[in-house]
Amino acid sequence: MTSPKIARHDTRKIVRGTGHEQMVDELAVEEPLEIRINNEPASTVLRTPGDDFDLAAGLLVTEGVLKSPDQISAIRFVNQGDHPDQRNVVNVAVSAGVKPDIGRLHRTSFPANSHGVCAKAVIEAMKHQAKPSHSRIRLKLEMFYTLGATLRKAQTVFERTGGLHAAGLFDAHGTLVGLREDVERHNAVDKLIGNLFLNEKLPLDKHVLLVSGRASFDILRKAHMAAVPVVCAVGAPSSLAVHLAQEMSMTLIGFLRADAYNIYAGAERIEV
Amino acid sequence: MTSPKIARHDTRKIVRGTGHEQMVDELAVEEPLEIRINNEPASTVLRTPGDDFDLAAGLLVTEGVLKSPDQISAIRFVNQGDHPDQRNVVNVAVSAGVKPDIGRLHRTSFPANSHGVCAKAVIEAMKHQAKPSHSRIRLKLEMFYTLGATLRKAQTVFERTGGLHAAGLFDAHGTLVGLREDVERHNAVDKLIGNLFLNEKLPLDKHVLLVSGRASFDILRKAHMAAVPVVCAVGAPSSLAVHLAQEMSMTLIGFLRADAYNIYAGAERIEV
Repeated sequence: MTSPKIARHDTRKIVRGTGHEQMVDELAVEEPLEIRINNEPASTVLRTPGDDFDLAAGLLVTEGVLKSPDQISAIRFVNQGDHPDQRNVVNVAVSAGVKPDIGRLHRTSFPANSHGVCAKAVIEAMKHQAKPSHSRIRLKLEMFYTLGATLRKAQTVFERTGGLHAAGLFDAHGTLVGLREDVERHNAVDKLIGNLFLNEKLPLDKHVLLVSGRASFDILRKAHMAAVPVVCAVGAPSSLAVHLAQEMSMTLIGFLRADAYNIYAGAERIEV
Repeated sequence: MTSPKIARHDTRKIVRGTGHEQMVDELAVEEPLEIRINNEPASTVLRTPGDDFDLAAGLLVTEGVLKSPDQISAIRFVNQGDHPDQRNVVNVAVSAGVKPDIGRLHRTSFPANSHGVCAKAVIEAMKHQAKPSHSRIRLKLEMFYTLGATLRKAQTVFERTGGLHAAGLFDAHGTLVGLREDVERHNAVDKLIGNLFLNEKLPLDKHVLLVSGRASFDILRKAHMAAVPVVCAVGAPSSLAVHLAQEMSMTLIGFLRADAYNIYAGAERIEV
């Protein structure tokens, strides 16, 4: 059976000077997942199938809907069946007495302050949800050089499709603790955090998160909701990601290479 | 004044063997934009400031909320002021008698069929919104080799920050018609389409869209809502993007290079 993460597709390959040939290419699978809370539709994401319970739990944690795993009484696929199409609706049943704030999943407006809806207001709102990081983790400067290679070595689907983002969690010594891949970077982060949340490993305040591609505000926000104090990206950070990192006392590294990187915030956690 | 698309930030650059130095790095700006319809909050996106009216209009078109520019009576910033923070709320006033379906912007559940929420059901739902492409555009095989270089040459902010996605629209001869950059790929597409929509240039059924990075379902869906028949990506397409392209008679090209590319759907539009 083909992995549900990979789909085969008949593709025409064009190469200058050599004409064209028909080949079978492997695609990263993208499918909708509907997430329900107590049987009410709460959100639908487009994701790569797999680790769907982790994704549902992770999304609810990183969006501030749930705070501890004992708030969840059960996570199940709504349709029980062997066909993959029947595994695209997940229900999260919350424990008695828990009142999840589902409205957090539908962001029609940001909180505004006297300046209007601006970066400052967004950061202020974040501060009401989670305190700045108090993590006293200290990391060796050279440790960061190894993270990219470790992540790539552990990635299984990207090699074949070129179509997935990865999120990896490392301990302070650069040892890989967990890795998830998905067509969307934020889903990879949610799957990773959701898995550790369900296994009662949060807060992740002694860990380092590495994401493929760029570091946006949403990635930093999700990391901070799980108390991750250090975020690294292979690509560039956005202005708002840097701003959030500074305000939340997080360490943010961008353009991480095997022999170089940039520190945008929180350099005091890195021992020179 | 610094461009509102670029923020300067004091950054520590680490290079193996040569220690570290303090430098000023340029970041792609990411800021919230609240979009209101008739003064009701409808959606908030994180975007790079600039072309915000195009973004608001484009989002409403590509999400199926509005269909023609005469449905809009005015687009304005809610707060009139010179400070950039005051330009983060846009109101779209719709014409008398127009009843926009704002619910489309808050996707809590996908339409399901007897198989549940699956790729097939998602594509079926899309077919109710927009018919398959009837574009008879024919394109030369060699023309595609030039698109990437043309796009990169026209990109202004990426070079400096490495942090922006680009969406470019080309005519059938490979001439660049429009280009937008944003921290999020889908915003770049919405800005591009929104600008042409407001200038009454839709449908774009004789054009080619090129996006940096990967081609997801949402990118194909947005292109199709503007009737763009050909979508190219520098990176990989997802399975659902390919599926949509096939069902909507679109042409989808991935891994576009200066001397090679893959055709995933609609090869009949390309003259060998």
